[in-house]
Amino acid sequence: MPGLAGLFFCLIMNSELKNIKRLIVNQSLELDCGKIIKGFPLAYETYGTLNKNKDNAILAFHALTGDQFCTNINPITKREGWWTFAVGPGKAIDTNKYFVICANVLGGCMGSYGPKEINPETNKLFGTTFPVITIRDIVRAQKYLLDSLGIEKLLSVIGGSMGGMQVLQFAALYPELSHSTIPIACSASHSAQNIALNELGRQAIMADPNWKKENSSPDKGLAVARMAAHITYLSKKGLEEKFGRKLQDKGSLKFSFDADFQIESYLRYQGATFVDRFDANSYLYITRAMDYFDLEKQYKGNLSHAFKDNKSKFCIISFSSDWLYPTIENKEIVIALNACGANVRFAEINSDKGHDSFLLNVPEFLKTIGEFINSTYNEVKK
Amino acid sequence: MPGLAGLFFCLIMNSELKNIKRLIVNQSLELDCGKIIKGFPLAYETYGTLNKNKDNAILAFHALTGDQFCTNINPITKREGWWTFAVGPGKAIDTNKYFVICANVLGGCMGSYGPKEINPETNKLFGTTFPVITIRDIVRAQKYLLDSLGIEKLLSVIGGSMGGMQVLQFAALYPELSHSTIPIACSASHSAQNIALNELGRQAIMADPNWKKENSSPDKGLAVARMAAHITYLSKKGLEEKFGRKLQDKGSLKFSFDADFQIESYLRYQGATFVDRFDANSYLYITRAMDYFDLEKQYKGNLSHAFKDNKSKFCIISFSSDWLYPTIENKEIVIALNACGANVRFAEINSDKGHDSFLLNVPEFLKTIGEFINSTYNEVKK
Repeated sequence: MPGLAGLFFCLIMNSELKNIKRLIVNQSLELDCGKIIKGFPLAYETYGTLNKNKDNAILAFHALTGDQFCTNINPITKREGWWTFAVGPGKAIDTNKYFVICANVLGGCMGSYGPKEINPETNKLFGTTFPVITIRDIVRAQKYLLDSLGIEKLLSVIGGSMGGMQVLQFAALYPELSHSTIPIACSASHSAQNIALNELGRQAIMADPNWKKENSSPDKGLAVARMAAHITYLSKKGLEEKFGRKLQDKGSLKFSFDADFQIESYLRYQGATFVDRFDANSYLYITRAMDYFDLEKQYKGNLSHAFKDNKSKFCIISFSSDWLYPTIENKEIVIALNACGANVRFAEINSDKGHDSFLLNVPEFLKTIGEFINSTYNEVKK
Repeated sequence: MPGLAGLFFCLIMNSELKNIKRLIVNQSLELDCGKIIKGFPLAYETYGTLNKNKDNAILAFHALTGDQFCTNINPITKREGWWTFAVGPGKAIDTNKYFVICANVLGGCMGSYGPKEINPETNKLFGTTFPVITIRDIVRAQKYLLDSLGIEKLLSVIGGSMGGMQVLQFAALYPELSHSTIPIACSASHSAQNIALNELGRQAIMADPNWKKENSSPDKGLAVARMAAHITYLSKKGLEEKFGRKLQDKGSLKFSFDADFQIESYLRYQGATFVDRFDANSYLYITRAMDYFDLEKQYKGNLSHAFKDNKSKFCIISFSSDWLYPTIENKEIVIALNACGANVRFAEINSDKGHDSFLLNVPEFLKTIGEFINSTYNEVKK
């Protein structure tokens, strides 16, 4: 474990994000882009109690628009945490038994080092002067959090979507730091279609004349980006079942560009509410990190090499109707793990809810992760 | 046939669209929105020669961003026509044998009555004062063109995507006006996902502050809309094979928001070039017409009733990797046709090129339409 001399807990009061917990890392981190950052804040949250042996800790990684508040009411947005279905007392990730840690990613906008923070060198917001970061940078930053908590080995690392990429990156960087490894609905390298979809969102933001303007934010562009992304999180069948061609008003068509169909109102609402809780530049930086993610390339074209020293138990999970990170891409991870003789399970969960399934109440999924973590826990406790 | 007294050909000279052929319809058309338009221009093009019996005419309907110039070099855009692979001498739709008619849709921006035209009542551009139109309006308008050409029965009506919707609408409105009917890669009613994707494009346009501003156009918003649509026209596999994670410059990542990946440059190019040839308001109106299309609802919830008097030979074609109008939605048309005892063939063409397949050189597809039209021709000639 690296020296902890430079690490301490800090509770920062800040006009926007008061009362959130932040670790102030006072060590240098060399980013993949080559830039060295000399210390940075990492906002995080914990749920449950770390036991005496410190062997009941689970590190949960959030997805693109998530944050550290994975369960209960998020004190900033006043909304339910993004993984309320999975994390809590008696739930699949049972906070009566486990100690759950979740940090806001580097580049995020909920208190971690990101474009929405003040650059101490200029006393101005970073904005687009923030360095371009990678999934590897994001994961390395969170290692300091484990050190600060004195956790030598996690019970589990888990996350879906971009959270799953962090899980894979963690497994590659720290093969001995977790008893089990659960990447969900993700990919070992971002596909061309997914790069295209992220680029679409970035272009929508960058097309907004309020982008990079002082004291304004590209809300309209960010809302469009969110609408685009939101469509990809749902399945065609799920959309058809939930909305179909249902009209907003029960009468007839309006023959206008108002929202005639319920799906239109729903999307507009998703866009409009998103801008209240998310920073457009964070959206740019985090999607960029996703696009740059290519674990196979990191290991010279052989994905198996990323996992060759990893003795943890893997559980790979995909969803049948997820077209963003389809089963076939998740299976490529399974194939690489099998090729290096890893301990690996794979489950494709039947769900019509598309990529979003990992965030929703999908009982078979919750049962799968619950049982897998529990079996790891029992083995550790033996 | 309705009286042709009010119809005449007209070659209009206009600063923007000179030398294009337009039919000036001098009859009233009652639109589905309730508004009555008193005469309107319909821009069109023909290829090949109408024979003496006038029984070799094929009406080809264009898709969302197409126009009347289906083959050869488009004189306005200087680009190849959208269906150059299919239409021409010796091609599947052989202009040595057939007389191909293609009109710019109502709401379009290539000379037909649309938001880019001058409102004769105000002497100003219609813009968003143009009435909201439907696929049925679009098809009814084109009936005048057949009348003006003295064509009593077509050899074939054909079109892909929104063109296919027009084919279906034509079959329902004019059951006796075509010997064969070929809807390609389409649906009898727009799905929730497709409404969502169109709404995304509209929101991108309407978010642009240049929208509805005099002497300016929402180019950035329209480019984003086009990028979004373009992604949906390609398959995940096709994108992976064509672009994968190939970098724009052969070196390493740029760690910036410039286009690092080839897919990013490609999309940006698609967006940037589209705004030179398409009107943002046309994009709004035509996508709205697509979303409103619901042939099942027109026939009180029974799609079969749309085709019950139609004695034409149907050939329904879908593409295996088309996720916008997947085979299952095309098959619903087949089921409805079978239910009313129609003469129907169905072909799912294997292609990795996604929805765009109908515009591309996909030999099995071109062979299928070529042989089907030829067999119809031989029967008519018997």
